[in-house]
Amino acid sequence: MKKIINRAEDAVNEMISGLVAANPELVDSIPEKRIVYRKQLNKKKVAVITGSGSGHEPDQLGFVGKGMMDAIVAGPVFAAPTADAIYEAAKLTAGNQGVLFMVKNYTGDRAQFSMAAEMCEMDGIKTKTVMTDDDVAVKDSTYTAGRRGICGAIFGYKVVCAKAEQGADLETLVALAERVNANTRSMGFSLTSCIPPAKGTPIFEIEDDEIEIGIGIHGEPGRERMKWQPADILIENIVKNILEDLPFRASDEVAVMVNGLGATPTMELYIAYRKVAEMLDAAGIKTFRSYVGNYCTSLDMAGCSVSLLKLDEEMKTLLLEPIEIPLHIF
Amino acid sequence: MKKIINRAEDAVNEMISGLVAANPELVDSIPEKRIVYRKQLNKKKVAVITGSGSGHEPDQLGFVGKGMMDAIVAGPVFAAPTADAIYEAAKLTAGNQGVLFMVKNYTGDRAQFSMAAEMCEMDGIKTKTVMTDDDVAVKDSTYTAGRRGICGAIFGYKVVCAKAEQGADLETLVALAERVNANTRSMGFSLTSCIPPAKGTPIFEIEDDEIEIGIGIHGEPGRERMKWQPADILIENIVKNILEDLPFRASDEVAVMVNGLGATPTMELYIAYRKVAEMLDAAGIKTFRSYVGNYCTSLDMAGCSVSLLKLDEEMKTLLLEPIEIPLHIF
Repeated sequence: MKKIINRAEDAVNEMISGLVAANPELVDSIPEKRIVYRKQLNKKKVAVITGSGSGHEPDQLGFVGKGMMDAIVAGPVFAAPTADAIYEAAKLTAGNQGVLFMVKNYTGDRAQFSMAAEMCEMDGIKTKTVMTDDDVAVKDSTYTAGRRGICGAIFGYKVVCAKAEQGADLETLVALAERVNANTRSMGFSLTSCIPPAKGTPIFEIEDDEIEIGIGIHGEPGRERMKWQPADILIENIVKNILEDLPFRASDEVAVMVNGLGATPTMELYIAYRKVAEMLDAAGIKTFRSYVGNYCTSLDMAGCSVSLLKLDEEMKTLLLEPIEIPLHIF
Repeated sequence: MKKIINRAEDAVNEMISGLVAANPELVDSIPEKRIVYRKQLNKKKVAVITGSGSGHEPDQLGFVGKGMMDAIVAGPVFAAPTADAIYEAAKLTAGNQGVLFMVKNYTGDRAQFSMAAEMCEMDGIKTKTVMTDDDVAVKDSTYTAGRRGICGAIFGYKVVCAKAEQGADLETLVALAERVNANTRSMGFSLTSCIPPAKGTPIFEIEDDEIEIGIGIHGEPGRERMKWQPADILIENIVKNILEDLPFRASDEVAVMVNGLGATPTMELYIAYRKVAEMLDAAGIKTFRSYVGNYCTSLDMAGCSVSLLKLDEEMKTLLLEPIEIPLHIF
């Protein structure tokens, strides 16, 4: 294993430290709790918080700032953050409007956010929790009861946080978050396993000519293992599953995300996007806005996922609201 | 070799097709010439064009749009674009103010841009060419006479294109581009070789415990091959070389880019940034703005580079001018 790290056990904390150093005007952190929070807190609005195991960056710590998350709570690599840290993040960011927890559907995250919600309640902090389960690949996988939450969750962060910024109340945000989740579908495939720093070896075996279709972002098994196929066939496979699941229909308007899992060149993501666009065109589905890049990764896994959100007019407006987060280009 | 491609010989054209499909409001292309150009051309200003071999995305095709490049010309993977295509891009974008070519210093690119400039001259199109050679690692490397141009070139694109947008004339832009290049220094290291699609195998051998210090973005040899070291020691090595070369001094103000070479997780880039920030602080150098992500890659190479630009007041203003390019986050 070769990585740009010091000690594996320090990797997450040093990453957070680097993120804060790179964005001193936008974010700050409570290192011992692995909380990253927006520097200019607005306590008149509902606070929106997410959290998960680390290793999916830029999700989630890159999404803290004005117009996006008020705080995120990072766990160790691929392991849920503690209820205690989530509770601290809620105390730090909550005003009178309460806190919305947006959580990807994994058993560990569910449990910790649920405990944190109880701690908040005892403290008089009103919370609501919305789970994201956008991955159409499998149900009841490793670490999950029901469907998994993957990259499509980021559509929810953007839309819901923009609405929170406008002063919407907690119930309105819950309804919006559930509507976004209900209209989001994702699926991915991987070419390689990632190598977590502390483990130092791949978390699953995959041959040089094999593809895992429907991979999870922690390397959980997908639907099937197949021999390598050209990009167009791989993309056709996952996008067909996505389209049929909602289902998306002609004249629907969508946001599209082609997401790299960490080690995939930008060149390949645009080749993938080309086929996605061709399929959407053929289905009469209109693309409102598209995103091509690394958004929710699995460390150094090669592969990609596709996420579609069926938009309504409110979501379209909220998707374009300005944000101030660490992921600026210039 | 497993990649998200169809036929290797179609990879670059399909990538361009995907980029245009993802950004129909911003860019268009001339596929047979591999030209990507800004859709809303402004012929009253100097046109700014760059080009290089493909495989470094998002550099350069992600940087086309308002406030950035008017056109880019993509070659095959790691091979210069043709003079003919560069000339076509100039004809397409040039008004009366002429064209600025901004080119990274490689022998092949120099030759093609030089020929294109001659073709433009015969056609009455005024051109100037500025070379970037920010890499402090080596001189007279494979494909290069003098120093190589790597990721720091992107600072030049941003600053010079913002000035062009304001209506500056060709001579002013040349002087600014040379001033930015003179104040930019970069160096990188790699953990792995990339695998070009058409080759299908690594372009150099490197052991599981080895690091190439001073790597080129086409896999050209660096200064030395060493055993793996912790992130802080690797970063210290390259940043020390960068700082001593200009040299950067206490109270200088800089823009900092920590650039992933394609397969490096965001987590590792922030760990790297943390050490860069620590060294700049220790040297009394002030960071005006920082960029952490994949900007100028080498396909699926693991590793990173660091670039510093010593800023003056004009550069600071230009760096923050708004842009409209394919690399939006939301």
